[in-house]
Amino acid sequence: MAKKAKKNRRTLSRESSRESAGGQALIFDLDGTLVDSVYEHVLAWNEALQQEGIEYPSWAIHRRVGMSGSLFLHEVLGEISSRSGKKRGEINVKRIQKLKKKNFAARLPQVQVLPGAGELLKRLSHLGIPWAIATSGAKEEAAPLLRLLKLPAHSLVVTGDEVKEAKPEPDIFMLAAERLRIPINNSIIVGDSVWDLLAARRAKTLGVGLLCGGYGQAELEGAGAYRVYKDPADLLQHLGELGIR
Amino acid sequence: MAKKAKKNRRTLSRESSRESAGGQALIFDLDGTLVDSVYEHVLAWNEALQQEGIEYPSWAIHRRVGMSGSLFLHEVLGEISSRSGKKRGEINVKRIQKLKKKNFAARLPQVQVLPGAGELLKRLSHLGIPWAIATSGAKEEAAPLLRLLKLPAHSLVVTGDEVKEAKPEPDIFMLAAERLRIPINNSIIVGDSVWDLLAARRAKTLGVGLLCGGYGQAELEGAGAYRVYKDPADLLQHLGELGIR
Repeated sequence: MAKKAKKNRRTLSRESSRESAGGQALIFDLDGTLVDSVYEHVLAWNEALQQEGIEYPSWAIHRRVGMSGSLFLHEVLGEISSRSGKKRGEINVKRIQKLKKKNFAARLPQVQVLPGAGELLKRLSHLGIPWAIATSGAKEEAAPLLRLLKLPAHSLVVTGDEVKEAKPEPDIFMLAAERLRIPINNSIIVGDSVWDLLAARRAKTLGVGLLCGGYGQAELEGAGAYRVYKDPADLLQHLGELGIR
Repeated sequence: MAKKAKKNRRTLSRESSRESAGGQALIFDLDGTLVDSVYEHVLAWNEALQQEGIEYPSWAIHRRVGMSGSLFLHEVLGEISSRSGKKRGEINVKRIQKLKKKNFAARLPQVQVLPGAGELLKRLSHLGIPWAIATSGAKEEAAPLLRLLKLPAHSLVVTGDEVKEAKPEPDIFMLAAERLRIPINNSIIVGDSVWDLLAARRAKTLGVGLLCGGYGQAELEGAGAYRVYKDPADLLQHLGELGIR
């Protein structure tokens, strides 16, 4: 692991020097990366599935949050139908998605900004480092979370409904980089889930993992995280390690 | 890691042969091990802290659930007071604990049994393998969760209020083994959190980790898990690996 980290660091410094000519950017996931909403998403899904008579444990939902909702359901229902013999057609996917949305909205008042999220974004703006937020969630569901962050008016946000394929496809991060006018491989992707990091690898760029979504360090490293920090506050303290001054 | 697993396996088979003379037992944690309640506990704590004006992220609570509630608060409040300069005395610990209890009770209807939990306990009884449940939680909070498991009348359950020191102290597991009349080092401790596994090591016995509490595999192995399974259903399918036939 130490060897791999060293190799990655070398790649990074090479890229950093390229970036200093061509620019450099950070692209952030939203849920579990900037706002503390993962546990609410997990229980909202768990409740929606229960409401449709499906028992599916929270930890397994947790490991899938961060994919698009429809991909998530596709995976979960595939597993359930192969286990229970229940036909996929018997499960009302649309209704589960609607219930989940409602259950999450009910839990919204508890969602808080993660430590250091606002400060980190402010610092990047201050340093002139372009940044964007790219979330698998729909615009409607992301809006109240984005409001918590009190973003400046010009902030760039890409939501799940703007791309055909959500994470772990890299499309959403590619689109964010395109809009920032920074080459994707000069962009560092920051996320809390393995889906962010897999998407970063597929986009051939660096991924940085944050523990504040509830994944373990080894899970994030195994998915290709170049570095893992606790939360945005911890990342802010170590910006230099990403080649940002 | 592979080497370590091999070494542990050797130790296990040596112990298994000893057990076949002196008996063998399984001691289970409750929350996140047999019932799917960890995410509800996390949000109940998070809400209680918010109600007292304390922001503390869910993932960091998650990593501490499974300790006793008072040890948990001791750790969290120590961290908060060192960060905010708030004096410990200014924080109403009793009120936070009371609020947490209330918040968890409100989330109880959503808690389900984890896959295979009932079947696993039934199978052990059928095989004549003594087993017990040992939970850091108070009797009052554990009672509704235990009801979900529909345990047989004679089942042995040890709760947090029966010992002076909760996990990661090994006391609760030692007491369970004592009541089962099985030497603690002939008992295998099954839990979802690093606190169960650290307690197992301190009790000088084997610990088996389950992923269904939301920890990652490497975290559980790092805390000394001899084996890691997905959930009780997965453990049931691999009982032979623990030397149980």
